Amino acid sequence: MKPFVIGVAGGSGSGKTTVVNHIINTVGGDNLVLLQHDSYYRDLKHIPFEERIKQNYDHPSSLETELLVRHIDALLSGYSIKSPIYDFKNHVRSEEYNSYTPMPIILVDGILIFYEKELRDLMDIKVFVDTDDDLRLLRRLKRDIHERNRSVDSVLNQYEKFVRPMHLEFVEPSKRYADIIIPHGGENKAALDIVTSFISKKAAHTSAEQQKSASEQGENNVKVNTDIHVFESSPSQKK
Amino acid sequence: MKPFVIGVAGGSGSGKTTVVNHIINTVGGDNLVLLQHDSYYRDLKHIPFEERIKQNYDHPSSLETELLVRHIDALLSGYSIKSPIYDFKNHVRSEEYNSYTPMPIILVDGILIFYEKELRDLMDIKVFVDTDDDLRLLRRLKRDIHERNRSVDSVLNQYEKFVRPMHLEFVEPSKRYADIIIPHGGENKAALDIVTSFISKKAAHTSAEQQKSASEQGENNVKVNTDIHVFESSPSQKK
Repeated sequence: MKPFVIGVAGGSGSGKTTVVNHIINTVGGDNLVLLQHDSYYRDLKHIPFEERIKQNYDHPSSLETELLVRHIDALLSGYSIKSPIYDFKNHVRSEEYNSYTPMPIILVDGILIFYEKELRDLMDIKVFVDTDDDLRLLRRLKRDIHERNRSVDSVLNQYEKFVRPMHLEFVEPSKRYADIIIPHGGENKAALDIVTSFISKKAAHTSAEQQKSASEQGENNVKVNTDIHVFESSPSQKK
Repeated sequence: MKPFVIGVAGGSGSGKTTVVNHIINTVGGDNLVLLQHDSYYRDLKHIPFEERIKQNYDHPSSLETELLVRHIDALLSGYSIKSPIYDFKNHVRSEEYNSYTPMPIILVDGILIFYEKELRDLMDIKVFVDTDDDLRLLRRLKRDIHERNRSVDSVLNQYEKFVRPMHLEFVEPSKRYADIIIPHGGENKAALDIVTSFISKKAAHTSAEQQKSASEQGENNVKVNTDIHVFESSPSQKK
């Protein structure tokens, strides 16, 4: 049975990560592949570092969405993938990869995933985490100052120059494509219970179907483990 | 085990009824009591009919919310209730009642149920059905003209005078209290699946606990059926 694809979107500081972690903890890492749109930032090693840090990383064009689409497609067709790892400090793609085989649940997260039609079309359910704009700024400030050691001014400047305009232009309008909206970010236990309960059921169902299919074929391994083909980065990114 | 209380709110024409019907069809009528805020309109028999039809039925004060609160409280405490039936044609409370015994799920619906703190506090989950304002007007027009035989002008006048201002003042701001938001009204199959799957699980769980509790007590009937106390309308409404 085909994996079930869930997208979790929401603005920066919305509590998206809390929702994603809650899903992973409930469903279990063995049943799930997490693909983060952030890992698919385009490799900028061909431009000088001083230029890299001035880029707009909140714009859809900064991400190699076409590769993420191919990776989800591959997992849905029973193939394994090598998912890129992004080096956020140097703004380049790392030499390392994460290898994933298909799992019952494919979880995709990112602020812009509902903006991209090709991504949306691959998703069975689309969850948008919706938090008031001032609370999102407040959380981002706390996180970037305390966890990432940035200055207040640098966070505010980046927010004003990139985060806010891209949110208004791309993220907020893409909420329209959500199937379900979780207000008040990740603090919302009732919504987390509802969504994770559904996903757990889907994971159990898909697992059971896969087991059944494997035993009917008289094999110990399902197709995905005997016929691994790996999709790597697109050629344009390999120079 | 205490019944699980679910509130379903949303503006007029939002698709609330579709969501409620979907929940009832999935959970099964035997597991559920549906309480509609609309049934608790105040009885206006003490004022002339010509005055009754001019009232603002979209304002919270038009509803006897305190009785609905007492009824939910009673069901939660294991008592049966006699829920009023409203005669929408004459704007009076009917002489008849609907009798309900406690069930695993108590479903409460209405446009204003999240506006009322006492109601909100009784709910385990609060679902808001969110549909664009123009689509809500469009649906209301279709319904009132074709199913209720009203003229276009009367529907539009009522919408402009009562429905819209009350929506902006009371309904829309109460969305803030929702745990989960279903966009695109009742057409949204993905969200319906997620929400009803959760409610079915709750119903099965509560039923099983009740059965267990009954058999442990060596009784065929649970408490609710052996100790029925009926709450009726409040005295202020009985004159």
